[in-house]
Amino acid sequence: MKVAVIGLGLIGGSMALALKDKNLASSLVGVDANPEHQQKALALGLVDAVAGMEEAVDASDLIVLAVPVNIASQMIVPLLNRLTHQVLFDVGSTKQSICTAADASPNRNRFVATHPMWGTEYSGPTSAVHGAFENKAVVICNSEASDADALEKTSSIYQALGMHLLYMDAAAHDIHAAYISHISHISSFALANTVLEKEREDNAIFEMASGGFESTVRLAKSNPEMWMPIFMQNKENILDVLNEHISQLRKFKSSLEKEDEGFLLELINNANRIRRIIK
Amino acid sequence: MKVAVIGLGLIGGSMALALKDKNLASSLVGVDANPEHQQKALALGLVDAVAGMEEAVDASDLIVLAVPVNIASQMIVPLLNRLTHQVLFDVGSTKQSICTAADASPNRNRFVATHPMWGTEYSGPTSAVHGAFENKAVVICNSEASDADALEKTSSIYQALGMHLLYMDAAAHDIHAAYISHISHISSFALANTVLEKEREDNAIFEMASGGFESTVRLAKSNPEMWMPIFMQNKENILDVLNEHISQLRKFKSSLEKEDEGFLLELINNANRIRRIIK
Repeated sequence: MKVAVIGLGLIGGSMALALKDKNLASSLVGVDANPEHQQKALALGLVDAVAGMEEAVDASDLIVLAVPVNIASQMIVPLLNRLTHQVLFDVGSTKQSICTAADASPNRNRFVATHPMWGTEYSGPTSAVHGAFENKAVVICNSEASDADALEKTSSIYQALGMHLLYMDAAAHDIHAAYISHISHISSFALANTVLEKEREDNAIFEMASGGFESTVRLAKSNPEMWMPIFMQNKENILDVLNEHISQLRKFKSSLEKEDEGFLLELINNANRIRRIIK
Repeated sequence: MKVAVIGLGLIGGSMALALKDKNLASSLVGVDANPEHQQKALALGLVDAVAGMEEAVDASDLIVLAVPVNIASQMIVPLLNRLTHQVLFDVGSTKQSICTAADASPNRNRFVATHPMWGTEYSGPTSAVHGAFENKAVVICNSEASDADALEKTSSIYQALGMHLLYMDAAAHDIHAAYISHISHISSFALANTVLEKEREDNAIFEMASGGFESTVRLAKSNPEMWMPIFMQNKENILDVLNEHISQLRKFKSSLEKEDEGFLLELINNANRIRRIIK
């Protein structure tokens, strides 16, 4: 299978590695608007060659779209309109916007909307890693709008990468993603800003930073080029979660202000129920 | 050196292992009010023997106090009053309360107030691990109130465990700990409650949970017996940080509500500065 990966960053680069590692790509061409990313992807062996978009698309059987979600939503119709027989799937963290956009193409049925649930706080081709997607979930959205062969090809690739498949509609995905991923990033960004605000007064606190701090704040290193468009596209759902989160923080605040140990214990005991979800 | 460890949980248990691994304890006696913890600590080889408090203290050269901070503050004076020649250090996450309490004992000078900056979300003797403290920081507070030999013994132990020493007064420690540790726990607890609140509507979201979610929420598994007293003792500093954190979250909320991409980018770029602190 001849593959083109459009966008050679964290996800596109790791996808390229995974497809090669599993012998799913007889050839793998990379497309990236950034010449530095092209060079790095070649040097790191993520791709066999780089090419312009149209050339890469025309010569491929499978196209993986791995650019920021705002760009993906802009590119999807021109890309789909160019297809003759190919399958195209995206890997973006929001699904409603790209699905709505794709509906405007007569080739909508060649597109499979997916979201592999994996990422790190790093970006660019140098952040690509082997084995990224193993044992993770991938969400496939609005599958009824895709051709059976396109869906079958995409599903079998993800299964070969060791992922388990979840099917849902794009609107439901975006609600869940807000809770399970997007709010974690906003919380981390805000926590970093909270601490950096204080750090103006005293640098010493960072010498004390331990594992708990690092784990809650590491996502604050994430790239704005990727995350701003996600936040904007999923604004309504994220605002809904963010309001709930602020309200939950206010409960902790109130329990402390009133020295209400019973209420504080209730809040912590309730939070401990997360143990049955993350081991 | 004959050592007594009072409190055989995550920190006390890991400290017992570290002291044995580094050959710093010729004998190691454990004290714990919970008979089940005593049995487990013996079975796991954390301690050579268990004993009652007074017996253990009288027979030791060094005493490590590793109980929840509210209990530590209650126990410190009776413990100190019993000492003849021993050194006693605590390992609690707040330092102001125990230092103030200790000042009431004529043996205050035998006490060294410390906070090794390490922990996990697990608790009890079964959560103790080898090598816990290596390459971490330990804060030593109000060192001028400790005898030179007590300070020297405590410092050399922590150095032997591979820790680097920071000195500050207890009040400064508690401010920094609020920023670097306590707020991360409150944020995680509140994030867990946010998601669990939503989960009532739909269980499917947890199948999607990925690394980012786990890393920001794992601290929500932490034990209320340890954390409630920390939050209560450090209430003023934590409220200060919590107010700042809610205010930072409100900025994200405002940028989304107004679709102000410039402001959102500024917030994320600012948060990205955390890269120079956590690699």
